[in-house]
Amino acid sequence: MTPEKIKKMVSQLTLEEKASLCSGKDVWNTKAIKRMDIPSVMVSDGPHGLRKQPEDGDHLGMLDSIKAVCFPAGCAIASSFSRDTAKLLGETLANECQAENISTILGPAMNIKRSPLCGRNFEYLSEDPLVSSEIARAYVSAVQSKNIGTSPKHFLANNQEYRRMTSDSIVDERTLREIYLASFEGMVKNAKPWTIMNSYNKLNGTYLCESEAMLTDVLRNEWGFDGYVMTDWGAMNDRVKSLKAGCELEMPGGNTTNDLEIVEAVRSGDLDEAVLDQAVERILTIIYRFEENRDKNISYTLDQDHEVARQLAEESIVLLKNDDGILPLSASQKIAYIGQYAKKPRFQGGGSSHINSHKVESALSVADEKTISYAAGYNDATEAIDEKMQAEAVKLAAESDVAVLFVGLPDSFESEGYDRKHLKMPANQVALIEAVTAVQKNIVVVLHNGSAIEMPWIDKVQAVLEVYLGGQAVGGATANILFGNVNPSGRLAETFPLRLQDTPAYLTFGGEKDQSVYSEGVFVGYRYYNSKDLPVLFPFGHGLSYSTFEYSNMTVSKNKLNDSERVSISVDVKNTSNIAGKEVIQLYVSPINSRLIRPAKELRAFDKIHLEAGETKTVRFELDKRAFAYWEVAIHDWHVEDLDYKISFGKSALDTIMSEVIHVTPNQLLPKVYDLNSTIGEIMADQNGKVILEQAMGSVMAGNADAATVAEQGPNDMMNAEMFAAIMEGMPLRQLLSFVPGVEKASLQQLVDALNQ
Amino acid sequence: MTPEKIKKMVSQLTLEEKASLCSGKDVWNTKAIKRMDIPSVMVSDGPHGLRKQPEDGDHLGMLDSIKAVCFPAGCAIASSFSRDTAKLLGETLANECQAENISTILGPAMNIKRSPLCGRNFEYLSEDPLVSSEIARAYVSAVQSKNIGTSPKHFLANNQEYRRMTSDSIVDERTLREIYLASFEGMVKNAKPWTIMNSYNKLNGTYLCESEAMLTDVLRNEWGFDGYVMTDWGAMNDRVKSLKAGCELEMPGGNTTNDLEIVEAVRSGDLDEAVLDQAVERILTIIYRFEENRDKNISYTLDQDHEVARQLAEESIVLLKNDDGILPLSASQKIAYIGQYAKKPRFQGGGSSHINSHKVESALSVADEKTISYAAGYNDATEAIDEKMQAEAVKLAAESDVAVLFVGLPDSFESEGYDRKHLKMPANQVALIEAVTAVQKNIVVVLHNGSAIEMPWIDKVQAVLEVYLGGQAVGGATANILFGNVNPSGRLAETFPLRLQDTPAYLTFGGEKDQSVYSEGVFVGYRYYNSKDLPVLFPFGHGLSYSTFEYSNMTVSKNKLNDSERVSISVDVKNTSNIAGKEVIQLYVSPINSRLIRPAKELRAFDKIHLEAGETKTVRFELDKRAFAYWEVAIHDWHVEDLDYKISFGKSALDTIMSEVIHVTPNQLLPKVYDLNSTIGEIMADQNGKVILEQAMGSVMAGNADAATVAEQGPNDMMNAEMFAAIMEGMPLRQLLSFVPGVEKASLQQLVDALNQ
Repeated sequence: MTPEKIKKMVSQLTLEEKASLCSGKDVWNTKAIKRMDIPSVMVSDGPHGLRKQPEDGDHLGMLDSIKAVCFPAGCAIASSFSRDTAKLLGETLANECQAENISTILGPAMNIKRSPLCGRNFEYLSEDPLVSSEIARAYVSAVQSKNIGTSPKHFLANNQEYRRMTSDSIVDERTLREIYLASFEGMVKNAKPWTIMNSYNKLNGTYLCESEAMLTDVLRNEWGFDGYVMTDWGAMNDRVKSLKAGCELEMPGGNTTNDLEIVEAVRSGDLDEAVLDQAVERILTIIYRFEENRDKNISYTLDQDHEVARQLAEESIVLLKNDDGILPLSASQKIAYIGQYAKKPRFQGGGSSHINSHKVESALSVADEKTISYAAGYNDATEAIDEKMQAEAVKLAAESDVAVLFVGLPDSFESEGYDRKHLKMPANQVALIEAVTAVQKNIVVVLHNGSAIEMPWIDKVQAVLEVYLGGQAVGGATANILFGNVNPSGRLAETFPLRLQDTPAYLTFGGEKDQSVYSEGVFVGYRYYNSKDLPVLFPFGHGLSYSTFEYSNMTVSKNKLNDSERVSISVDVKNTSNIAGKEVIQLYVSPINSRLIRPAKELRAFDKIHLEAGETKTVRFELDKRAFAYWEVAIHDWHVEDLDYKISFGKSALDTIMSEVIHVTPNQLLPKVYDLNSTIGEIMADQNGKVILEQAMGSVMAGNADAATVAEQGPNDMMNAEMFAAIMEGMPLRQLLSFVPGVEKASLQQLVDALNQ
Repeated sequence: MTPEKIKKMVSQLTLEEKASLCSGKDVWNTKAIKRMDIPSVMVSDGPHGLRKQPEDGDHLGMLDSIKAVCFPAGCAIASSFSRDTAKLLGETLANECQAENISTILGPAMNIKRSPLCGRNFEYLSEDPLVSSEIARAYVSAVQSKNIGTSPKHFLANNQEYRRMTSDSIVDERTLREIYLASFEGMVKNAKPWTIMNSYNKLNGTYLCESEAMLTDVLRNEWGFDGYVMTDWGAMNDRVKSLKAGCELEMPGGNTTNDLEIVEAVRSGDLDEAVLDQAVERILTIIYRFEENRDKNISYTLDQDHEVARQLAEESIVLLKNDDGILPLSASQKIAYIGQYAKKPRFQGGGSSHINSHKVESALSVADEKTISYAAGYNDATEAIDEKMQAEAVKLAAESDVAVLFVGLPDSFESEGYDRKHLKMPANQVALIEAVTAVQKNIVVVLHNGSAIEMPWIDKVQAVLEVYLGGQAVGGATANILFGNVNPSGRLAETFPLRLQDTPAYLTFGGEKDQSVYSEGVFVGYRYYNSKDLPVLFPFGHGLSYSTFEYSNMTVSKNKLNDSERVSISVDVKNTSNIAGKEVIQLYVSPINSRLIRPAKELRAFDKIHLEAGETKTVRFELDKRAFAYWEVAIHDWHVEDLDYKISFGKSALDTIMSEVIHVTPNQLLPKVYDLNSTIGEIMADQNGKVILEQAMGSVMAGNADAATVAEQGPNDMMNAEMFAAIMEGMPLRQLLSFVPGVEKASLQQLVDALNQ
């Protein structure tokens, strides 16, 4: 429907009708207006499967949803480091939505993993805004390419579950831009999501639903968002304020209190009716975008999509450790599968993303019974050791050639709604690993968890496979990787720290008294560990392959550039093994001798490529200003420091394979205004300032014997050369009044005026 | 002179005369007004010796001062952990001041050691506000007991040298109170310093000279300060604003610009003349306090005070390591003194505290030439290894029974005026230590430095003696401890971290663009290392003795108390060795399960006691509210959480010898106002609220089948029990509108009103 038609339709609605369209009909549907043929459309939880509820569902959206395919969760999908993987997920979900008459799937969930303690990290993508933004962009573009809407969430700075309904995230402007907004920015600009879901929490004192700064200034005016904003379920605070701020749709609906407040506000003059009209236009535009593009012929089968789920899991699984090439396993070995998750994998998390899976494929269910035996080893409903189960497992491990331990976190250890308390696995699972290591040297650990864990047993096992919450086909995917049918290619999109105490927000996470101060600033994830030079268990970007890759021929198109130019970087990557495999090329940028507080390095580009055995490909990246820039609060914009920058390729954030240094110069200088508190050093650093100051100082010194003597003598017994230099450098102009008798404030002011010319 | 006489005198001064008294005559003297017989008095740099300059000195205060005794610097004095030691220093300095006609000695310097990188840490006392405040209190009381003024400095939050003239320290209210103000608070309240020196920097956007909040509200109104505030030298920004804020005296004087601004401001009505009168009264009160109490008969000799300097150093030296009882040395051993500092010790730092020492006693100068030989080993003017010097030293070490290495930091590595770049010793000194460890197993390292250093060689040496910047008699004191004439009793008043990267402010120290954000908050020093569970080289409070001590019989007078009560804690300490020694008793308090972001433990009392061989003493401490309290910003006051608190004795901040748990209840509850965003959990936690809410919810549930069903069913497949509980706990009242159809905002508001009754 054209904008004109939408406008016309809105003009024919009554005030009450318009207000009514600003909230849902119920938990999942928008309101219809029959006299105008405005349809009601349905939205549904995602992001990794449909949680469509039957029409006669409850008012809280908590009860059973339809049978659906559970794809890998965000933690896994991001670990694919593959836009194609995110695209495949998006297209598959969009097909299901078309068939199920769902207009918009709620997601992706793309909050930054500020701390591994956040209970909802399993849904989120990364600790790095580029990975988060790029994976989400591919997903959103794919879903929307099939005319289904998305609702990227939770906008913004909702990085903990603790008191998420009322907590106030205090984040400085630069951190907000470089980390938390950056996670959304590229996705919004490039994928144009139909809707955005605002989060429950406050940001710097304002509920997100009421944040005009975020919802209108940044999202619409800066980034060009042209859909509508809906609240997270129950995130509406003040309805009229929110409408003014740019939050159009309140969800869930069913209570008319807030609709009436809109009507009253228009009547009282508090709310300009044009604001309401615009909101309704935005909502209707999206409703019709779905409605008019519906393809009712689309169908899907759960079983076919199950195959997709397996394929996605295979791309996402991360091989963390593989000593002595213990993996892939051989079918001729006598193998023990140990651990309940071999039979009943943990493959998804609790909360709004919970899927009523149509079937679950365990590793055991696809195993060859001739060579593979099984013992449960533990019960994940408890942390207590079941001595009998454990003994049986240990016995089986001892009798086998290799033990594959299927362990991880139980549902109660991580979920939407509350945060984790520690990074440990349950005591009985740790005890099981320890017990098996005592009788068997060949151990492979397969981890089922939604976020980083501590691994005190790491040195006692030979291999670790991180399968995350891999969706309902995780068992088949795991088996394919264990036996080498699939070559692992996932990379960690989050750091695994050695211990909770090492995490950047350890002392402050969760905040206090409904306030969460993000005092670690931009030092989130590897930005912290790298900059503090802290050892980690596994770094961001880490992941092994059964292939080996060699990098060579790094080139940069320019060694010096202005920040309005682009630079092109290429590198040749060769698969030096005899099997095909995939490599993730990671490009990091480090400012050298920055005068600011900046992370040691930041991921600025990445790509995943397939290489046949022996094949070489040239990978090329283009970097623009943003790859070198930081957010400069003085101009409220991105700015590039005039510096050398190291551009490096690495297998992880900790690793450097090869690097080149280039110099980038800003196109525009920051505005500079001098005053009486400007320092001698600042002025001397300015070519023009140096001339003016030296002239002025010359006449001061000429007229003042003491100052001249001291300046001439320079350092002495009391003051070494470094102190003398530092004092001169840091001295504000006004201090000349204190130390040089005869200097007048008026003449200093003249000097300042001259500097500001 | 009585206040009335002062007032009368001021009333007889002209406006110009009054304004003139608000700045100095020159670098070191206040202005006289002859017609009124108002004298000029002199102030002089301290804090660990006089830097009195001759009358014909320069205008910048940089040239040679009179010969004086250089006592141990602040870093050393605080390590005594002894109020008696600080007292002895204060009395000795006051005597010298009386004899030298100095009215006020500038100091003590008592900024918190936020980072070991601060160039001026050698003058400062501690990373802990209690140690800082108590040592300063003893010093100030002692000086002033002899009618000499002090000027504790640098008030406030001046914890770096980098751009100290213009840098803006951004510190949150609670951190300011608990750490930075706390360093001054006890000293001001208990010792009533005659003056306070405001620092150069800004605090939260305001130059300290202009901070009415700090200079008037906190210092005078809250703490009862009744002297005058003077600027650090050249720290005046806006003269009239400063006068209004409570900064009375501008130093240095000599330029009349600012005096004239005062006159003009009064004439124009911008400045109430009463403010000026009050400032002049305050200045004159202190001038006459000195003048009328002068004892012109006091004399001193440099040589006698040199003996005091040695005694102070002996109390301050910290024995950090002493494996296999290598110390004390025996006179019968063949001993090599290696390192330039054996002959020419580094005993003080550069800058305003630099003393023109009348003589310097080196360890070598008091050594027995028969058993002790010497090799310089390195030249501290460079980091380059002098192969010949090093080889000579290594040879000597190899030929001796034991090598004592005199090493540390050269002057250029730490000074007023600039910050350190790292925590390393010069490369040639480290190389020397490594070379000597290759040929000699019996190694004692004697450290001459003003702040913490890294010790990569620590495992290769048997003993480490930290003598800090121990003043001009440091050599004799060191020898006395090395040979057991004196039993070491110092304790570290700062943590020695393993590496710079581990320090709390590592990522942000120095700040950027004239702003230094104290984002580590209250986690300074051991508060950080303990709370992050980070290993350190040597913890705060650590120090060995040649004696051994045993603790027993810990008692607490009450196990439950109200915060208006005091609790008395005692412990028996026995010297279980056969030589007399001194022990520092350290009492720490830890809140258990605090709901706030608080340090794991904090030092709340300490004392140093002397114990003869075999002697037992009972040490008793009284704790009041402050020992358990944190600064509550909601009431801008100290508040005690209703918690269990662990009270422990330890040999350091890392160590616990014994502990008891007590419960402290606040006398007053924090004010609580409910609104629509109050959560179900908050309301249920309030006994009264629980009753009201349960009644209201009962009728809601009765009227709503869905909500009742869900509430009854509770956790399900999508939502585990923990999530269900967390969601209920964190749900704000207003969310009932979203999830319970039929609920009206008006009825929720009634509920809120009832809660607030």
